[in-house]
Amino acid sequence: EILGAIEEMLSPQQQILKGRRVLVTSGPTHEPIDPVRFIANRSSGKQGHAIAAAARAAGAEVVLVSGPAEVADPQGVRTLHVESARDMMAAVEENLPVDCAIFAAAVADWRVADASDQKIKKDAGGAPTLHLVENPDILASIARHHTLRPRLVVGFAAETEQVVAHAKAKRERKGCDWIVANDVSPATGIMGGDLNTVHLVSAAGVEDWPSASKAEVARRLVARIAAALGEAGR
Amino acid sequence: EILGAIEEMLSPQQQILKGRRVLVTSGPTHEPIDPVRFIANRSSGKQGHAIAAAARAAGAEVVLVSGPAEVADPQGVRTLHVESARDMMAAVEENLPVDCAIFAAAVADWRVADASDQKIKKDAGGAPTLHLVENPDILASIARHHTLRPRLVVGFAAETEQVVAHAKAKRERKGCDWIVANDVSPATGIMGGDLNTVHLVSAAGVEDWPSASKAEVARRLVARIAAALGEAGR
Repeated sequence: EILGAIEEMLSPQQQILKGRRVLVTSGPTHEPIDPVRFIANRSSGKQGHAIAAAARAAGAEVVLVSGPAEVADPQGVRTLHVESARDMMAAVEENLPVDCAIFAAAVADWRVADASDQKIKKDAGGAPTLHLVENPDILASIARHHTLRPRLVVGFAAETEQVVAHAKAKRERKGCDWIVANDVSPATGIMGGDLNTVHLVSAAGVEDWPSASKAEVARRLVARIAAALGEAGR
Repeated sequence: EILGAIEEMLSPQQQILKGRRVLVTSGPTHEPIDPVRFIANRSSGKQGHAIAAAARAAGAEVVLVSGPAEVADPQGVRTLHVESARDMMAAVEENLPVDCAIFAAAVADWRVADASDQKIKKDAGGAPTLHLVENPDILASIARHHTLRPRLVVGFAAETEQVVAHAKAKRERKGCDWIVANDVSPATGIMGGDLNTVHLVSAAGVEDWPSASKAEVARRLVARIAAALGEAGR
């Protein structure tokens, strides 16, 4: 009975996000070292793309800002392709205002301070040292936006230890409403895999969701977003 | 007439590498910074995989040692998947002896000296500095192998300036027979693209090949390899 009720709520007929504008970021960012080398991360884009697709299926107008992801653009979703964290920040800002923003991308915390215009030669005086500088903090910037803060701002936390503790601290520090936290230690197979096991951290506390496909996690998150936006009124 | 002769020579009926063992490396390598971040490069694996497929079509027994490439494993080719330069080196050594080795992978020159077991936290004291150390030089090691040097060792040079000059110097420095050199400046679209424009650098001099599909460059290179191995006798 409960399952049936959930399925009905999630069925494509139920346009629970109709009339809402939703922005999703997804995938990794690539930060250049020189024209051929870059710093990357293991995000495949599967979870973020699944959220964009689920929001679209629920009737939302969706903008997906995607780094170089492994997965194809979701059908019916306007997808903007970016490489670096700075590119992603600019694309996000250009697409405000939205009702809800979901920052699922694994944005590089740092970029190389002095990226080279030419390929760095191996024989040019020993191994280089890469000095990193902090990238813009997209989640915190949008969550604390003075004029265009979305009503619901959802961040992600990919951790390899103390997952929930780090996620709670991140929620406070960034000023967002929810954090979707998961353990991306290589042994979990979550990064790049099709399953996800997440914890939803909000002001109300922590929910431990059962392990499920990334598509199912996305549908569940979209249902929660619709409920939260509904409570807040149109 | 010339085209027809070339096509006949390259047709699948012509098993010009029958009885030969060929090893090909392809794709980028990924060098870990921590469990979720790594240093990568823009190699798609298209050219190396095309060479492995062409050598197989010409009747060779092919081993492909591939980093995390964007393209699928070629049919009928034993493909070994590796991540880092050190993994690739080990896989290459384990698969000697071969008649010909073609090192098309874009192997990272450096890795991070002190990769972290846990995700590096952003708030743990400012932006980190990445100290790099040199990776093993697969091409030079195999080209100068005391007991198992393949009869024909082919390296690749991906350059963004002074392409041929760098490739000539690289051939001397590494001790290999041929260098296939190309210009991978972003404006050329070669890295990740379907076309390639290469220069074949050997002891005899430099040949400038016309721009062609990576599959065509692969067939042409395989024909040249078969001729060189034939001249050297079985």
